[in-house]
Amino acid sequence: MPPSDPDKPILALNAFDPGRAAALEPQLAGSIRRRYQLFGSASVLFYERPLELVRAQGCWLYDAAGTAYLDAYNNVPSVGHCHPRVVAAAATQLARINVHSRYLHPGALDYAERLLATLPRGLTNLTFTCTGSESNDLALRLAASFTGATGVIVTQAAYHGNTALTTAVSPSSFLQRSAAPHVRLVPAPSAPEHFADHVTAAIADLERHGLRLSALLIDSIFSSDGVYADPAGFLRPAVEAVHRAGGVLIADEVQCGFARSGDALWGFERHGLQPDIVTMGKPMGNGYPIGAVVTRPEILDALHEREGYFNTFAGSPVAAAVGNAVLDVIEEEDLMANALRVGDYLRQCLRQLATRHAAIGAVRGAGLFIGVDIRAPASAPALINALRERRVLIGAAGRAGDVLKIRPPLCFSAADADLLVAALDDALGEQR
Amino acid sequence: MPPSDPDKPILALNAFDPGRAAALEPQLAGSIRRRYQLFGSASVLFYERPLELVRAQGCWLYDAAGTAYLDAYNNVPSVGHCHPRVVAAAATQLARINVHSRYLHPGALDYAERLLATLPRGLTNLTFTCTGSESNDLALRLAASFTGATGVIVTQAAYHGNTALTTAVSPSSFLQRSAAPHVRLVPAPSAPEHFADHVTAAIADLERHGLRLSALLIDSIFSSDGVYADPAGFLRPAVEAVHRAGGVLIADEVQCGFARSGDALWGFERHGLQPDIVTMGKPMGNGYPIGAVVTRPEILDALHEREGYFNTFAGSPVAAAVGNAVLDVIEEEDLMANALRVGDYLRQCLRQLATRHAAIGAVRGAGLFIGVDIRAPASAPALINALRERRVLIGAAGRAGDVLKIRPPLCFSAADADLLVAALDDALGEQR
Repeated sequence: MPPSDPDKPILALNAFDPGRAAALEPQLAGSIRRRYQLFGSASVLFYERPLELVRAQGCWLYDAAGTAYLDAYNNVPSVGHCHPRVVAAAATQLARINVHSRYLHPGALDYAERLLATLPRGLTNLTFTCTGSESNDLALRLAASFTGATGVIVTQAAYHGNTALTTAVSPSSFLQRSAAPHVRLVPAPSAPEHFADHVTAAIADLERHGLRLSALLIDSIFSSDGVYADPAGFLRPAVEAVHRAGGVLIADEVQCGFARSGDALWGFERHGLQPDIVTMGKPMGNGYPIGAVVTRPEILDALHEREGYFNTFAGSPVAAAVGNAVLDVIEEEDLMANALRVGDYLRQCLRQLATRHAAIGAVRGAGLFIGVDIRAPASAPALINALRERRVLIGAAGRAGDVLKIRPPLCFSAADADLLVAALDDALGEQR
Repeated sequence: MPPSDPDKPILALNAFDPGRAAALEPQLAGSIRRRYQLFGSASVLFYERPLELVRAQGCWLYDAAGTAYLDAYNNVPSVGHCHPRVVAAAATQLARINVHSRYLHPGALDYAERLLATLPRGLTNLTFTCTGSESNDLALRLAASFTGATGVIVTQAAYHGNTALTTAVSPSSFLQRSAAPHVRLVPAPSAPEHFADHVTAAIADLERHGLRLSALLIDSIFSSDGVYADPAGFLRPAVEAVHRAGGVLIADEVQCGFARSGDALWGFERHGLQPDIVTMGKPMGNGYPIGAVVTRPEILDALHEREGYFNTFAGSPVAAAVGNAVLDVIEEEDLMANALRVGDYLRQCLRQLATRHAAIGAVRGAGLFIGVDIRAPASAPALINALRERRVLIGAAGRAGDVLKIRPPLCFSAADADLLVAALDDALGEQR
C-alpha cells in the first residue's frame, strides 16, 4: 500500500496497481491484463483486488460467484441499482421512440417543467446534455459569454468534468500540469469561516493579472475535496463577493443534487444561495446518461447569440422518461427523508466508533454524503481495501486521499449503515 | 421562406422560426410556445410546421394521429428505430447491472475487442465516451499532447461537437465568432484535386503565425459541408502532408462510421487512410449515448502522463450490451450491403430525376449518405418543407444550406427510396 501522497491525483485514489496483477487469482489476473491491453493507460480499476461485478439491486452488487457487496460508494444509481420503475420507463420508451429533440415530444417538456419547478425563481431556461461534464463545459461558456470575463475559481481538489474546458478547472485530474492562467484554486473549506477570504483574494489576484472573474464553480458539498457541508450558509459571503466582482455562481449539483443531502433537492439550498447557473448529471438518470444546465434567459441568450449549441442524444424521449421515473421514485419512496434520517444515523454511529478508534477524525457531511478523516496508524486506502475484503464498498476523497468517501444509493437503510459500521470497526481493529 | 444565406450557421438550417408559431394549429402552437419558454434560445425545431413524433419503427416515424413519416434523415437510429434486438439488449442489461467501469465487467472488454478488430493495425487502445462531442474533445487533446502542437485544420462548414474545444473547430456552429487563432479552415472538397493544396497552404499559414500543426480533423464524408465522397482515395495526399508536418489525422467517424458508406465499416477506409485517432458516436448505440476514441498506445500515454481522464457513464455494461447488439444487427441483417445497394439505387433514381428537373444539380455520396445540390428556381429549404408535407423527412447541408442531406436508417429499402424519389418529384413539380 503506497502512503497517501498529497500530490497524487484524486482520480488515481484507490486505484489498482497493474504491476500487481500477477499476484492475483489467474482468472482475475487474465481479465485485468486483457483490460489494460484494450484500454491502455486509460484503464483505472478500483481496489488492490479489483472486483468483477455482474448483477445489482438496490444497495447491493454481486460478483459472478454470487457474493454480495454492500454499495456505500455509488451515487449514480441513486434511487437504487436497477430500480424496476426506472428500468421499465427506459425499456418502454426505448421500444416506442428515441430520437433527437428537434422534433417535439411531450416527455422532454414535462420533465423540463418538473425540474424547473424545483429551482429558484428566475432560473427558467433548461438545456439538456448527456453528462455532467457536458453540463459544466456549457456552464463555463455561458458564464464567459455573459460576463465577458474569463477568470474561474474552483477548490484545490475539485473535479468538474472530463472535457478540455472542465479538466482545466479540475485540479484533481492534474498530473503533470498546473492550473491555467485564468484559473484560481482556493482551499477546501476545512476552515469555512475563511472561505470567503480565499475567494476574495483569488478575485484580487485575477485582477492583478489583468483578468476579471467569470465564475465561482463549486460543488456545494465539496465531494472530491473531502466533503464539507457545515455550517449551513457558510458559502454566502463568498458568493456575495463573486457577485460584487461581476462574476456568476455556477452550482455544480452533479454530486450533491437530487436529494442526496437529505435536507433539500439541491445542495446549494443548504447554503441559501441563488445560483446563476445550475448543472446536473450523475444521479439524474440513475445510470442512463443525462445531464442538464439551468440558467436565466439573458445568460442563455448571451451564448446563443455567439454560437449554436445542439446536443444529439440530450432531451430525447428516453432521457426524459428515465429522468421522470427517477423523480417519481425519489418522491414516492421519500428518499430525501431517508437520506436525512439514515445519513444522520450513520454519522452518529461513525462518531460513536470514533470514541473507540483514534484513527477516526472528523465525521462530516449532509444526508447520504459523508466524509470521514482517517489518521495514523490507520490509512484511508488500507481501510477502503479492508472494507472491500469485508464486502463493503466505499471510496476515498480529499487532496491527500485521507478521507473516506461514503455516498451510497439513497435507499440505504439503517441496517445497511450498521453493516458498514461493523465492517469498519472490524477493519480498524486490524489496523490498530 | 428566407433565402439561403451562406453566412447562416448550419445548425439553424431548416430551423423553425418561432415568430411564426401563431400561424399554426392551436395545439401545435401551444406546444411550441411551451417549449420556447422552457428551453429559451437553445430551442431549435425542424420545419416550418414542426413535427410532434410519438412512435417509431424501422424507417418510419409516427405522430400522435398515427400519420407515418418516412425517415430519410436520422442516422442515429442507424439499424432502424427501436430495433427490437437493441431494445432487448438495453432492457435486459439495465435490469441486471449498470455501473461505472472501475469495476471489471466482461461486456465492455468483449465490445472493445470487437470494435478494435475492425480497425487498422496499430490502433489498439480504446477509450469509451458518451457522445461524439466527448470523443472529439478527447481526440483533440490526445493530438495536442502527443504532437506538442496546437494547430487544427477543419473544413469551412465542419461540425465536430458541442463542447468548448470542439465548438472551436466547428465553423457550422459559429454565429458571432470567427475561428480561433489556432484553427485553419479549408474549403469542402468540391474540387477534390485541390484539397491537399488547401491543407498544405493551411499548414504553411499556421507556421507563418508561429504555430505547428497538431491535427487534421475530418469527417471523411464531409456531412455538414455538403457530402463529398469521391473519388475514393482523394484524401491521401492531404494526409501525407499532415504527417510530413508532424500532425496527426483524426478520422471523425461520428457521421460516416458503422457501415453507412456501404463499402466499409469506416468512412476513412474508402480513402485508404491510416488514421492516428478514430472517433465514434451517433449511430454507435442506435440512440443510447455511446462514443469512443481509438488510438495508438503512445498517443494515449502522452495525455495520461499529463492528466487523468475518467468518464462516469462510459463503457458501462449497458453501453457495451447496446453497442454489441448494434454490431450484431449490422452483421446479421447485412446492413452494409443494404446501404451500398440501396444507396447506389437511390443515387441512380435521383440522377434520373435530374434529367427531368433542372433544379437538381450534382448527386453525391457513398452508401446511404447522399447529398443533392439544389439550384433556382427551387430551394433546398423549400423542398425539405415540401417533402415534410408529403411525409418524407430529410435535412439540409452545405455552407449555403443548398444541399439536400439524405441519410436514412441503414434498413432503408428500394421501395423506401422509390417513395422518397416520388415525393421529391412531386415537390419539384410544385416549385417549377
